[in-house]
Amino acid sequence: MSTPRITLVNPNSLVKVTEAIERAVAPYARLPLEFRCLTSSEGPAGIQTQAEADASIAPMARLFLREAAATDAFVVACFSDPGLHGLRDLVAAPVLGIGECSVLTAMSIATRIGVIAIAGASIPRHLRYFRAMGVADRICGELALNMKVSDLADPQQAFLRMEEVGKTLRDAHGADVLIMGCAGMADLRERLEDACGLPVVEPTQAAVAMAAGRIFSRS
Amino acid sequence: MSTPRITLVNPNSLVKVTEAIERAVAPYARLPLEFRCLTSSEGPAGIQTQAEADASIAPMARLFLREAAATDAFVVACFSDPGLHGLRDLVAAPVLGIGECSVLTAMSIATRIGVIAIAGASIPRHLRYFRAMGVADRICGELALNMKVSDLADPQQAFLRMEEVGKTLRDAHGADVLIMGCAGMADLRERLEDACGLPVVEPTQAAVAMAAGRIFSRS
Amino acid sequence: MSTPRITLVNPNSLVKVTEAIERAVAPYARLPLEFRCLTSSEGPAGIQTQAEADASIAPMARLFLREAAATDAFVVACFSDPGLHGLRDLVAAPVLGIGECSVLTAMSIATRIGVIAIAGASIPRHLRYFRAMGVADRICGELALNMKVSDLADPQQAFLRMEEVGKTLRDAHGADVLIMGCAGMADLRERLEDACGLPVVEPTQAAVAMAAGRIFSRS
Amino acid sequence: MSTPRITLVNPNSLVKVTEAIERAVAPYARLPLEFRCLTSSEGPAGIQTQAEADASIAPMARLFLREAAATDAFVVACFSDPGLHGLRDLVAAPVLGIGECSVLTAMSIATRIGVIAIAGASIPRHLRYFRAMGVADRICGELALNMKVSDLADPQQAFLRMEEVGKTLRDAHGADVLIMGCAGMADLRERLEDACGLPVVEPTQAAVAMAAGRIFSRS
Amino acid sequence: MSTPRITLVNPNSLVKVTEAIERAVAPYARLPLEFRCLTSSEGPAGIQTQAEADASIAPMARLFLREAAATDAFVVACFSDPGLHGLRDLVAAPVLGIGECSVLTAMSIATRIGVIAIAGASIPRHLRYFRAMGVADRICGELALNMKVSDLADPQQAFLRMEEVGKTLRDAHGADVLIMGCAGMADLRERLEDACGLPVVEPTQAAVAMAAGRIFSRS
Amino acid sequence: MSTPRITLVNPNSLVKVTEAIERAVAPYARLPLEFRCLTSSEGPAGIQTQAEADASIAPMARLFLREAAATDAFVVACFSDPGLHGLRDLVAAPVLGIGECSVLTAMSIATRIGVIAIAGASIPRHLRYFRAMGVADRICGELALNMKVSDLADPQQAFLRMEEVGKTLRDAHGADVLIMGCAGMADLRERLEDACGLPVVEPTQAAVAMAAGRIFSRS
Repeated sequence: MSTPRITLVNPNSLVKVTEAIERAVAPYARLPLEFRCLTSSEGPAGIQTQAEADASIAPMARLFLREAAATDAFVVACFSDPGLHGLRDLVAAPVLGIGECSVLTAMSIATRIGVIAIAGASIPRHLRYFRAMGVADRICGELALNMKVSDLADPQQAFLRMEEVGKTLRDAHGADVLIMGCAGMADLRERLEDACGLPVVEPTQAAVAMAAGRIFSRS
Repeated sequence: MSTPRITLVNPNSLVKVTEAIERAVAPYARLPLEFRCLTSSEGPAGIQTQAEADASIAPMARLFLREAAATDAFVVACFSDPGLHGLRDLVAAPVLGIGECSVLTAMSIATRIGVIAIAGASIPRHLRYFRAMGVADRICGELALNMKVSDLADPQQAFLRMEEVGKTLRDAHGADVLIMGCAGMADLRERLEDACGLPVVEPTQAAVAMAAGRIFSRS
Repeated sequence: MSTPRITLVNPNSLVKVTEAIERAVAPYARLPLEFRCLTSSEGPAGIQTQAEADASIAPMARLFLREAAATDAFVVACFSDPGLHGLRDLVAAPVLGIGECSVLTAMSIATRIGVIAIAGASIPRHLRYFRAMGVADRICGELALNMKVSDLADPQQAFLRMEEVGKTLRDAHGADVLIMGCAGMADLRERLEDACGLPVVEPTQAAVAMAAGRIFSRS
Repeated sequence: MSTPRITLVNPNSLVKVTEAIERAVAPYARLPLEFRCLTSSEGPAGIQTQAEADASIAPMARLFLREAAATDAFVVACFSDPGLHGLRDLVAAPVLGIGECSVLTAMSIATRIGVIAIAGASIPRHLRYFRAMGVADRICGELALNMKVSDLADPQQAFLRMEEVGKTLRDAHGADVLIMGCAGMADLRERLEDACGLPVVEPTQAAVAMAAGRIFSRS
Repeated sequence: MSTPRITLVNPNSLVKVTEAIERAVAPYARLPLEFRCLTSSEGPAGIQTQAEADASIAPMARLFLREAAATDAFVVACFSDPGLHGLRDLVAAPVLGIGECSVLTAMSIATRIGVIAIAGASIPRHLRYFRAMGVADRICGELALNMKVSDLADPQQAFLRMEEVGKTLRDAHGADVLIMGCAGMADLRERLEDACGLPVVEPTQAAVAMAAGRIFSRS
Repeated sequence: MSTPRITLVNPNSLVKVTEAIERAVAPYARLPLEFRCLTSSEGPAGIQTQAEADASIAPMARLFLREAAATDAFVVACFSDPGLHGLRDLVAAPVLGIGECSVLTAMSIATRIGVIAIAGASIPRHLRYFRAMGVADRICGELALNMKVSDLADPQQAFLRMEEVGKTLRDAHGADVLIMGCAGMADLRERLEDACGLPVVEPTQAAVAMAAGRIFSRS
């Protein structure tokens, strides 16, 4: 049997984000899996609004169809899981969304989940999604970093703000587990866990574990 | 003040459906409104799967941008409300979805809502949507016609099956109001109401009323 | 066909409130509808407690029966919708409640609804009602003006307090749409919208739009 | 200390129902309590519709005010608990509703509650009430006897139909506890329990126990 | 008929807590009931974590079996109701939990319930329990005293902290009824009620009332 | 780095069940993990009632403490996840429950989850658990095999009954994914999937995937 391949698709066109996704899956290198991280180069330059999320679906669908023959499981690597259910209709392989998997994984860790969003504008969209999933009662709070793009690009500033938001979710909202509400921040997961004293779920890693389960439980 | 315009967009490319939408709004001809019913000619040939719903968004977005300057309120005329929240980010005018408005209107009529879907494959998608809206508790059941396309094209056969499904929703699920779960069946609304002895909400009509409210309460 | 009539009933005996209801429907003057705003003169002098809401039902029922023959749709013009479901049993015409319609309308505008109540004592009653409607998950917060009657009578003081409460709902509770939780404050709607930067739903206007929909979709 | 008095009010004018309520409290004769069962003689002749429930409130409120000085706890003895929250605003003594107490008591017995209603028309009203209480998830089904009044008057016919409905709730809906959804059927409780092999909650008895708790925990 | 006996079991081994439970039932001395308050001497020395709650079940089960023949109703006298459903499988008599009964009783008093916990670590466990009961929507907040054991042992310090937490639940969370979230604090109930101006439910007393109801409605 | 070890504990004393658990994890043999499947030999001979589930916790806790030093992740291999949250308090390694993980995994596959239970008596317990997890809305139905133990021991008879129940969940309840509601039936998973035309989640496999995720995302 050949090595199964998990194809992770970054639905926005930023190669930097795809590189961060590659770093997120690095700890899984010991698994007998091949990880292929792709940029949806015709996608939007970033996904903050619902319109951007929607606009990312069509190019991603084309990319899925191209990769389907050589893929054992797909991962949609954007926290809003754009097109997740529709993409499942398009290909035979399992399709996992990092937003969905991060919540499901956090649910297996602790009772009250706090979510750290990048931008406040995403929160109503996430809320509708948590409700659609039927898990909104498990989310005790979601707060946004709401940083200027330039500040967000500085890892140290980003981390300090993330720590601040994580502690507020812990102390004022009662969170006993945190989710990083976007792809590409895996580098900061462990530090955030230490700073907040709470387990922190990195969404891409959560999705890869569930994708691996789907692959090996079938073999 | 000029006559306000409501632009109704059929997100699939079937002109026949757009014509049925035009008939649905006919009773509102007495209102001081102009109704513009458009076909999203680059959209899919029909919307049954989630993938088709998603694929309809991008062409519809282009159409919205073209019509925005001359539109006082938009109506997305497909029961799955594809792209609804994202389209609201794109244009300044109110954007109403016929799925959302039909449920909200039914909620103002009676307690337990039964939904008649065209195809069984749409039911999980509708269920996720009702949950995202936070109204799933009000839906006592959704059943599909599940007819062959050829049979569905025959109005008499379609009506008989619709009546059968409506009565099952009433008798086995306790529905005291019904929703026609797709655009373009307004012609049958009154007959269905008589046959089942229950109020029946036609989604496009529900959306037009709420769009009119948004327009006139601002003027 | 004669002009359809919507009868709006103020269930309390304050003529001043009925006059404010008349001003609330003024923007709809362009519609081919007659608006008849009536005071339930045997009702209580105001409705803050549940007991007052209950006491308003019997006189309102008599008024409905008197007006039924000449009415195409009724509106119960009190945010607690006293007697709504029972009144629907009494008359053949549609009966809309301004509380119910305001929530349904807000649900078609944005995701998280903030409600501005006059008195804190009404909040548990509203909460029970939102739950009975099955929409409590959509309400992100309800806060009361809690002003002395004399201060409330001063439009400028009332507005300033309303603005303060609206901004708290927006900033601390995440509201992206506001509802004025009582009849008779339509004069302040537009100003409040500007001050808070959020859409504001005036309940009587919401109910009139839905009543018009019921009338015209049948004609 | 004198013997505390629980005043039970039948909100309809049927003395026969009040007599059945008296028989329901008979098992509690061993408690150091006085039970006063009153007929709201100005109330409607029966309560099936929401309009009848609403119409019963005003006369009941007058009766409560007359009895308040000599009452240590009130019980509203109609399954729809008409006016419950408003009556609590009127008098200082605790006010218990038999509908509410029957559900709360059933919740302490088993997981899935089946409700036997007299008339199907009451079911949507009960459903709204269960939702307002926040307990709708615990109700696995509600079914109505839907008998002709003449047949209902025959205890043997009523019992047989009740047994049939109880067994359907058990077998098709999974009920592991049943509630008799109206006052005045206490005579049949034990037989129904034996016939269905499930615990059966009689609402008036449930309310008396909770009323006694309120009285004695204060003394 | 002999005097029915209610057996209350303190699942932890602290005799001091059992003595406080005895004081909690003192107001019920006027009822024709015998109260037997037992210490589960093989239980843990206290129940704060889920592991301690679980560890208390086996010794309690043995105690139940020993007492079953002479008991008409059991009360599990720990707010987490350890083993409640399983104990119901073991004995024929009704088994009531003080946690469950306190919530059900509070639900019959007011709309928004605030819970005062001893330790923050218990809150997620309580939350899971409220959800399992299907009543989480009624709990507007739960806050912990989070005191050092030595401070908690001082009744005056404990009361002051309890008052502070109760007022926060009232003012910041909207509570209109409070529950003391542990056994053995009945002595402070009345004072807390006066200090906060809200009804306060003592869990053991709530359970005894419901147990008495179960006993007498059968006799 | 040495090979991480996942310790799976069968909380009942039946070695046959432990052997079936070993077969369930066989497909994961390709992962760089050691699987240690243990029988809790002091546990009950089977877990059907809540009392049996509770009785299994104390011996399992002792076993966990003995294995903690040599374990990287634990799996509680009984669908009711007895003691899950308490065991998490006892050991530092992640503790996964097969019931919880099976639901979370099914949630990542399709919208409406059907559960196949062995015995009807388990269904209320499962229901309380699904509610505690906050996922009850995702479960469209749970039905029991309800077979005699002798028939259940015959794999062919067990399979035929399982297929029948699976198809009822699919056709009458709308399930689009099934869960095998107990440990030790992995041998039948693939056949059941083929027979019903739906994905089938085997709980132990679901838990192993999530346990592996927890281990590798940390390394």
